[in-house]
This record gives sequence, C-alpha cells and structure tokens, in this order.
Amino acid sequence: MGIKITGTGSYIPSGIEKNEDFDKHNFLDAEGQPFSHPNDVIISKFKGITGIGERRYAKNHLNSSDLGFFAAEKAIQNAEIDPETIDYIIVAHNFGDVKHQAIQSDLLPCLASRIKHSLRIKNPKCVAYDILFGCPGWIEGLIQAQAFIKAGIAKRCLVIGTETLSRVLDQHDRDSMIYSDGAGATIVEATDESGGIIAHESASYTYDEAYYLYFGKSNNKDLNPDTRYIKMDGRKIYEFALTHVPNAIKTCLDKSGITIDQVKKIFIHQANEKMDEAILKRLYRLYKADIPEGIMPMSIQTLGNSSVATVPTLFDLVRSGKMKNHEVNPGDIVVFASVGAGMHINAVIYQY
Amino acid sequence: MGIKITGTGSYIPSGIEKNEDFDKHNFLDAEGQPFSHPNDVIISKFKGITGIGERRYAKNHLNSSDLGFFAAEKAIQNAEIDPETIDYIIVAHNFGDVKHQAIQSDLLPCLASRIKHSLRIKNPKCVAYDILFGCPGWIEGLIQAQAFIKAGIAKRCLVIGTETLSRVLDQHDRDSMIYSDGAGATIVEATDESGGIIAHESASYTYDEAYYLYFGKSNNKDLNPDTRYIKMDGRKIYEFALTHVPNAIKTCLDKSGITIDQVKKIFIHQANEKMDEAILKRLYRLYKADIPEGIMPMSIQTLGNSSVATVPTLFDLVRSGKMKNHEVNPGDIVVFASVGAGMHINAVIYQY
Repeated sequence: MGIKITGTGSYIPSGIEKNEDFDKHNFLDAEGQPFSHPNDVIISKFKGITGIGERRYAKNHLNSSDLGFFAAEKAIQNAEIDPETIDYIIVAHNFGDVKHQAIQSDLLPCLASRIKHSLRIKNPKCVAYDILFGCPGWIEGLIQAQAFIKAGIAKRCLVIGTETLSRVLDQHDRDSMIYSDGAGATIVEATDESGGIIAHESASYTYDEAYYLYFGKSNNKDLNPDTRYIKMDGRKIYEFALTHVPNAIKTCLDKSGITIDQVKKIFIHQANEKMDEAILKRLYRLYKADIPEGIMPMSIQTLGNSSVATVPTLFDLVRSGKMKNHEVNPGDIVVFASVGAGMHINAVIYQY
Repeated sequence: MGIKITGTGSYIPSGIEKNEDFDKHNFLDAEGQPFSHPNDVIISKFKGITGIGERRYAKNHLNSSDLGFFAAEKAIQNAEIDPETIDYIIVAHNFGDVKHQAIQSDLLPCLASRIKHSLRIKNPKCVAYDILFGCPGWIEGLIQAQAFIKAGIAKRCLVIGTETLSRVLDQHDRDSMIYSDGAGATIVEATDESGGIIAHESASYTYDEAYYLYFGKSNNKDLNPDTRYIKMDGRKIYEFALTHVPNAIKTCLDKSGITIDQVKKIFIHQANEKMDEAILKRLYRLYKADIPEGIMPMSIQTLGNSSVATVPTLFDLVRSGKMKNHEVNPGDIVVFASVGAGMHINAVIYQY
C-alpha cells in the first residue's frame, strides 16, 4: 500500500504586480529612515537576491479561503473522485481571511469549514480543520494526512495551502516585494500502488528562532503603531535555512534508504532564489555529489513567495506539464521541503 | 497499550467579571435598537438560560499564548515528565493572540511556537503546530495526538486549548456575557496500562451550518463597520447541538462497546447550562435510561465559556479534586464531548 497524491490543483491569482510597480513606494529602513539609493537600485538589488521579477495578488473581492476553494475544486477534479468520499480537509495558512483594506484576520469559522461549505460537501464525517505551521504548513498537512491514514482513521484527505500575503505586508518595507498570493491543493489517499510517501521529517526550532518572522510595526513611524504586518529578520532566516534545511533533507533521505543520486526533483519552498540555490548546493555538498541539471524547478521569478502555497503549486505545475523542461514520471523519487515562520522545517521523500 | 492522559493543568485568569459588571452596558439588538427591558432584566434572563454568574478575563498584559504556557507548565509538572521528551505540542485556539485594546489577531509565529519557546524546550524534533477547529479544538487535538501515536510518529504529546474571548467580544451584544478566558493542557502518551482513549468521533457540519458562529459587525451601528467581533446565531446553535451532540456521543459509545450505564462522568463543553442539560437529557433518552446524579460536572456558572479551554480545565479541576462532589477513579469510563464554530462536533470515550 502506498499513500499517494492522486490529484493536484492550484490557483494562481490573475493580478500581476511587477517590480516596476514598486517604483513609487516610499521604502524606509527599520528605523524609519529613507535609503541612500533610489528605488530602481533597491528593486534591482532585490531582484538579484530573490530572483523575483513579479508576483501575484488576489483580486480585492477574494480572500484566502476563496483561493483555497478554487485550488481544491481543481484537485478533486484532477483526482476524479467524489468529494463526498473525502475524510479530512486540512487547510494550512497563517493569517486567515484578511479582507482587502481590512486589518483583522477572520478565522471564524476556520478556513477549512468555509472551503468545505463552498465545495458543497454534505458528509459530516469529512472533518475540516486548519493548521498553522508557517510556510511549511502544506507539507505538514501532508504528513498529518499520512498519519491519519496509517492510524486507520482516514483513507482520503484533501490538503490545501492558501495565503494572501498581499493583505498583511508593510508597503514601506523592502521585504514586502517578496510576498505573493496563491493556493495549492492535493488529494492524498491510501492506494494499492507502491511508492507514495516514503519518509518524512519535521522540526520546530523555537528556542532562539521563534520570532525570526513576526507580526510587527510598519517601518513608517507615522502609521498607527497598533497595526501590525508580516516582518522578518532576513539575515538570520537565511543562515538558519542554510544550516538546517539540507540536514533535514539528508536525515529524511537516510531514513528512507534512498540515495541522493536517485532523487529526480526537489520541490523546495519558494522563499528566495539565492537562498534556495544555496540550500541545494549545501545538500549536494553533504553527499560530495554534483548537482544534477534541472533538479530544482522554480516558480519564484514570476510567482513570488506565497508561503504555504508555493510547494503544492509548483508540484501541480510540473505534474501537469506547465513548467518548461520539467516533468515527473511514474517511479520518480521527489523531495518536498520547506522552511518558515516558527521556525519550522520539514521534508518528505515521495515516490511518484 | 493505552493512550492515556498522564498529566493535566489549567490556568484560570484571576480577573473576575461579575454579571453586575454588565449593568452599565449599552446593549442593543442586531438592528442597533435598545431593548425594552432594563439591563437587570436582561442580565437575569441571561443567567437563567446560561447559568453564568461570573466569568474570567485575562490581565491586560497577558495573551492567549501566555495562558496556554501557564497551563502547559502545570500539565508537564503534573505528569512528572522531562519536557524535552515531548514529540508534539498541539495548540487549539480560534483567534490567536489578540492584545488588549488591539483588534488584530497575532498568529505569527503560531501559538505553539510561542509556547514551546516559553517552555524553553530545545529539542527541535518536538513539532509545534496550531489547530483551528472551533470550541472542539482541544478534543480534536487529543484525537490527532492519538493518531500520531498510533501511526508510530509520536509517543508523547502536549495538547493545549487556550483562548481570550474577552478580546473579541462586542460590548453591545448580550451574547458577550457568555465569553470568558482560560487555558487547559494535557500530556497524552502511549503507556503500558490498559484503558485510555477507547473511541472517538469527529464531524464537521458545514453545508448549512458553517456560519452559525461568525466574525461580524458590532450591534452599535456607530462603531467602525470594518471592526469585527465574535457573533453567534444562538437559537440555531441550540437546536443544532441538541440534535447532533447526543447522537455523536451515542455513535462513539456504540463504537467502543461501552454501555451508557458504565459511564461515570461526562465532560461536555461549557457553552450554556440549559443547553448542556438538554443535551444530557436527550442522550439518556436515546437509551431510555435515567440520568445518574452527578454525571455532568459543570464550571460554567463561575468560569463562563472559554471555548477550547472549558473541557481540559473542567477535567483538570475534577482530576485534581477541586470540584466539590466530583471525582474520577482508576478504571472509570468518562466521556469528553464538544460542539462549536464550524460547526464541529466531537466526542471521546476514555477509560481513566
């Protein structure tokens, strides 16, 4: 028996926010002071580090749960299943539904309830809950689905990652250019086929790292100090990710008995192009191996960092043949890995 | 092997808000109109239905994650375990940390990360995540802990329910008198003893019921319509709970092979005294049995409805001999049951 992903879907918002659209922003440092460089220099430096040229913002009338619903509909259709047969709906996010121009997170009811309601699923035995686990939330949902199937309390789960970071960003912070909106969804189920989830690894580093990503004040000191935005200590996160993510992937691979040369694709959270490349380099260095060409599909250049949505969206794009020069084939070993607020890290070794 | 609760702890905020403290409130109906009765009549009617005479509010400088941390510390101490041996920290809540006089939910990082940080646990393999599942969140966390243990990915879990409803209530709404603050925590682990969790039942009714509890505007139309508060359709919830909770408990008992006369205590979510009594009556009517005296301990009269915190707090109080005329003894069969926003329902049959 293999616990496999039998359907995928993603929702990529139609609103494109290009780097040029930040030209007129009043960027300030953490002390509220303007930078010595003009915006075009700030933006070009940003592009050089993160690789991001543009990102997606949800339409004003849509919320995180709507995006998740759109992705879920596609995953159900793709898996060709009756939605009434789903045992669990697990929704990973980090801010709930934040309406356009509102500052409150709407979490009542939880997003999983909203999405199940929108899917018009009647079966009350389909248990719908939300998980908060930073950017690695979707992968953690996958791990929880696997646990429920192994424990005999579920056969088929819908795991969704959805986020509208455009609603919680500080316009005066250069880091705001990283954030994006999106949703990815997958059907995970017990099958008679071999393969599927082979091993997983999860970790929460909170002793020193809990507040590397936090909810903080605007860099613009004239704004209401009670209004908070997503904030990060980028340098610390970069160092943290470089130290811990390659090790987590290696631990997971070692557990699975799979060797690095058997890995065909690595789907890593799209946080920052340079960081992801550095993680990949360190991972292969741990094995004293060369990095195979085309091992790491990336979407950050055009889709930005949509938190929990990046990994399931990227996997859906490759699986459905929408990423140039990338494909997955039956039997292929792939790795899912993520790092984010918490600080949480996880990895899954999966045979397609 | 039994999956048992080996430690409990709760945090009951010291701030007592008595019914008289609502005397000066400007209560309005959903249309923004004043009521025809004076406040003392409104309050006495409220007391008659809900049984609530007073409730607890957290001190201004404390947030939901602080309350959860205090309860967790006690549960760890009570279980006499090394916190570094905990595999999962599962935190149920519904609004995150809402600071006093702020309106934003702070969810970054998740509350489990904050609590793990405060507990000074170093072990990164201790995975800390939040679950949103309405008032039944703590019981659902217990069910998830059981699944992880059964799936072989955990041996010992810390399951917390924490909430500060005082931070999200509409002062102009009579229902605001229901809400309270608090936290309860438990250590759940694989033991060599018999008993523990025998059966569970979970359900999410979202087709028509998803928005029975919701985030809505103040009854005072002069207030900012963008600011939202916890709101409920009390009548619909009452009818819903009466129909579905007794059935959920019966299904769970039938699954477990336990008969109703073997049940020693029923720990039900402290939502409303009259509703809980009506649920109990219906449950025993399903079995054509009489209600045994002292079967249902209640704390709502003095602690109000603190959402996810009521069941673990009540269990902790009885277990530690702090509830007059109530005790649990080795071998006793107890039921945990809850209902709330989502609308979610769950029940667990547990042998002490």
